[in-house]
Amino acid sequence: MHPSESFRVFVDLALTPESLARLRAGTVGHELVFPAKPVASVLAQAEPDPRFAEVEVAFGQPALDAIRGAPNLRWIQISSSGITRYDTPQFRNWLKERGIQLTNSARVYADACADHALSFLLGQSRNLPRSLALRTANGSEAWHELRGSCVPLRGQRLLILGFGTIGRRLVELLRPYEMEVRAYRRQPRGDEGIPTVDSLQLRSALGLADHVVNILPDSAETRQFCNGAVFAAMKPRATFYNIGRGTTVDQEALASALKSGQVGAAWLDVTDPEPLPESHPLWQEPNCFITPHVAGGHHDEQGTLLGHFLGNFQRFVRGEPLLDRVV
Amino acid sequence: MHPSESFRVFVDLALTPESLARLRAGTVGHELVFPAKPVASVLAQAEPDPRFAEVEVAFGQPALDAIRGAPNLRWIQISSSGITRYDTPQFRNWLKERGIQLTNSARVYADACADHALSFLLGQSRNLPRSLALRTANGSEAWHELRGSCVPLRGQRLLILGFGTIGRRLVELLRPYEMEVRAYRRQPRGDEGIPTVDSLQLRSALGLADHVVNILPDSAETRQFCNGAVFAAMKPRATFYNIGRGTTVDQEALASALKSGQVGAAWLDVTDPEPLPESHPLWQEPNCFITPHVAGGHHDEQGTLLGHFLGNFQRFVRGEPLLDRVV
Repeated sequence: MHPSESFRVFVDLALTPESLARLRAGTVGHELVFPAKPVASVLAQAEPDPRFAEVEVAFGQPALDAIRGAPNLRWIQISSSGITRYDTPQFRNWLKERGIQLTNSARVYADACADHALSFLLGQSRNLPRSLALRTANGSEAWHELRGSCVPLRGQRLLILGFGTIGRRLVELLRPYEMEVRAYRRQPRGDEGIPTVDSLQLRSALGLADHVVNILPDSAETRQFCNGAVFAAMKPRATFYNIGRGTTVDQEALASALKSGQVGAAWLDVTDPEPLPESHPLWQEPNCFITPHVAGGHHDEQGTLLGHFLGNFQRFVRGEPLLDRVV
Repeated sequence: MHPSESFRVFVDLALTPESLARLRAGTVGHELVFPAKPVASVLAQAEPDPRFAEVEVAFGQPALDAIRGAPNLRWIQISSSGITRYDTPQFRNWLKERGIQLTNSARVYADACADHALSFLLGQSRNLPRSLALRTANGSEAWHELRGSCVPLRGQRLLILGFGTIGRRLVELLRPYEMEVRAYRRQPRGDEGIPTVDSLQLRSALGLADHVVNILPDSAETRQFCNGAVFAAMKPRATFYNIGRGTTVDQEALASALKSGQVGAAWLDVTDPEPLPESHPLWQEPNCFITPHVAGGHHDEQGTLLGHFLGNFQRFVRGEPLLDRVV
């Protein structure tokens, strides 16, 4: 690639006027291509658009068919952290064969996701939902009980399922608590910076942890990964958190484990489907706390997302390695 | 003081059998004296007890009259972090003249208080109360609004009013967020480790901060310290937190500032009185979040409290400097 080369860039995000101006300023000398109908959120797939076939670069949530039908495509940046739709061995191989790079927007959401996870951990440690609801006097029985229910994080054990950008940031945030933090990874790489277990050691790691934080992405291998056997292997009354994807959890098994007390509490930012139907048993569990898939969200999210893309676009134009590269 | 000396130790806490056994084990060779009626909580004053007059050491919440009537008293350890009742220049001077040491239990509550403060800060940053209440689908207007309302702590400005053991721990917890943290102290000592302002610089510090965390203790000087003028000097729509004492805030002024939007949100662990009467205007403010004075509370609080006392007791017996010394 040569700096003087000009690219056609397909962007399927619904941009604000400010973002559009910023995008134009950051891609001067290149051609921007927009679909007839932009996507509603970074979690929805774009509709097919004939102009996609001409472009070299795509930013957003392009459909697989569109990608396969675009002979000039050289780089796709997905506008989310999760890349479920693109994450099959077949498609990864096809991209590799065609020399198409795939990046995601993990960095854009990792900080907010780790913050959300820590807000859950502290919400549990400080018993915040009960505490915000209880109006009682100092010295009452309910007051003593509430204070006594707050278990400090310091010195406790935490297990992270699925260790990537978010997990690394969470480990940073937890450092002052001097917790025993471990990670589970299908294939530990040795660069995790914390003790990391594989599938064979998972059972004993689950049995030790006071907090199990699931950050697994959705894929054929992770679907229903957290099932009844996982909950049964957990330390009794430990807390389960999910800020990965809802599909990685057997939700009926989780509801049963909460009902029996085997799992003490659950904090979920993601479910399957979202939102859960009103009749779902998890809504009935008093120790189940659910937020509506907002962990990665933050003020001026589009600004961060766009800044990340434009940074990578400059790298692409200069032929430098891209950040958050997946393929 | 000499290691072979034997002391009479007055303890007015309502102890569990385990704590009592631990207290006895940690004071072998000394005489424990208990009141006829132990106090209900670490926030209530003990009732007078004639046996108090004989003791050299007191641990709990002894009444001022009892202290003045105990000629052998050499050390008092208060079982709370706040020492309002003992914190007058007159009484401090009287203690000094009599050579009586006064310690508090700041360390016992500081970690939990700092955790509680961070749970408030992240609760605000992640908009947790709304998020836990909203059941909505990805891409809805409410969903976009909720995600956009989450403002990351990273890079924001925070001002701590009243900087002691809790403030220091909070600064440790906030380090990964790379915030601009300042403290206000009546008399900065230069050992705070963060930029510290005095009364003359307070107004401009208030005008800059996105988060104002009040940890002031209750005393004649701090009563109603956070008044209408303080709220008016704050950066518009900044958040106010109180984990110090309720009396340090003009609560009507706070309710007005919340109503007008000048203060964006308030997170209060302490109020005056506790709980606030049902008719209090703060209950009506949708951005006011109140917990019932539980910030210092934690599992096995009495164990931590007792451990802290017994550690200091060994230091006292050996004539070493005491931890958490106030006078």
